[in-house]
Amino acid sequence: MTRPLILLTNDDGVESPALQILADVSEDLGEVWVFAPDREQSGVGHGVSLHRPLRVTEVRERWYAIDGTPTDCVLLATRQFLDRKPDLLLSGINSGPNLGDDITYSGTVAGAYEGMLLGIPSIALSNASYDPTDYQTAARCGALLARHVLKNGLPKDTVLNVNVPNVPYEQLKGIAITRQGLREFEDEIIEREDPRGKTYYWIGGARPKGLNHPGTDIEATENNQVSVTPLHRNLTNLDAFEALEARNIQL
Amino acid sequence: MTRPLILLTNDDGVESPALQILADVSEDLGEVWVFAPDREQSGVGHGVSLHRPLRVTEVRERWYAIDGTPTDCVLLATRQFLDRKPDLLLSGINSGPNLGDDITYSGTVAGAYEGMLLGIPSIALSNASYDPTDYQTAARCGALLARHVLKNGLPKDTVLNVNVPNVPYEQLKGIAITRQGLREFEDEIIEREDPRGKTYYWIGGARPKGLNHPGTDIEATENNQVSVTPLHRNLTNLDAFEALEARNIQL
Repeated sequence: MTRPLILLTNDDGVESPALQILADVSEDLGEVWVFAPDREQSGVGHGVSLHRPLRVTEVRERWYAIDGTPTDCVLLATRQFLDRKPDLLLSGINSGPNLGDDITYSGTVAGAYEGMLLGIPSIALSNASYDPTDYQTAARCGALLARHVLKNGLPKDTVLNVNVPNVPYEQLKGIAITRQGLREFEDEIIEREDPRGKTYYWIGGARPKGLNHPGTDIEATENNQVSVTPLHRNLTNLDAFEALEARNIQL
Repeated sequence: MTRPLILLTNDDGVESPALQILADVSEDLGEVWVFAPDREQSGVGHGVSLHRPLRVTEVRERWYAIDGTPTDCVLLATRQFLDRKPDLLLSGINSGPNLGDDITYSGTVAGAYEGMLLGIPSIALSNASYDPTDYQTAARCGALLARHVLKNGLPKDTVLNVNVPNVPYEQLKGIAITRQGLREFEDEIIEREDPRGKTYYWIGGARPKGLNHPGTDIEATENNQVSVTPLHRNLTNLDAFEALEARNIQL
């Protein structure tokens, strides 16, 4: 019997120890192929490199580094390098949360989203702490969910966004299926002068405040639950759809 | 009375003629400020530049070029440069459609999405043709919708994704409030050798096929309607939410 083909990517780069940990636990589930950015790509969202060539470097057997985004990695792996479509895509383990409004900025989530667009059951996996100390818990949860998805599949046009608390596995309070929560961003822009006296700006890294509304990803991880949010391919706001139709806007 | 403050951005770059056309029609509606990328940024999605400084160049009065993404432009304009929060954000006019699954790759849509996250009523505006010949129709529709939104606001946590057919205004068949459709991507990866004999890859520009399901953005523009899709800040797939809850996955 053919072993499942499991594609891994991330946005922290091919050298991230958390990627290796995820690869290690994935080996039990199938044949693992890694296509990951050659350097950190956090914050790139669903960016795809349309306007420049991409280089692909074989780091070791079945591990490839690409000078692009996670989306580039998933596209090149699936369309160019792999002999068959992956049975599963895992993106991560991200160093830091991908909760609430973080999602659309996230390269980790975008890698999984691209997999979903390509018809691959896909999971984005993050350690939900800003100061992750251990990826073993997230890896173990990722493997458990991967096994479930390989066996049962996923609802159509859906990608899983998984955030795992940074605690020992035994302290987890179960799995919660969650809704995406809201964040309050307080980006500080730093304004400074460079060595030549020219002004530059740097978008600050102030940690967003999560609003821990009941049933959200943010609340779940604060309660030491593994947050599993099903994200939709269709971004239409159906409530707003009806409200706007009622306005009857005319040319 | 204070005139409305209107922030403009795009992903085709500050020199795009379509941006100038949008600015021209916006002048009738309020005080226009432009913060746009200094070069084309299509395909960058909701990328934000966290890992490098950004330069801001005043091109002329109230026009600024930034060496970053549309998201960077909106963040810097709102958090650093403008004295008050914009009353409206317009992103575009994009050269080419942002329909169906194009949306998450789009810098144009991301610029508007960032505005929505910052609490600004925001509209992404595209000419829905791959070979746009005229931006006057899109500009006129954009101004009409801008006027409507300045007066009536938008539903909460909603951004408008507007695609305008590339036809004379008189040939438009009205405004359709639409759902996001589906695309079938057939990216071809080009594999070539560079002048030094090293292999490179380039993600191809095959035009995606749109599935013109009834009520979608894709169908509307094919019928010469102005497509107005309300996009949601909350990406949770609620149907999948219930299906996954029913599976009762255990640690």
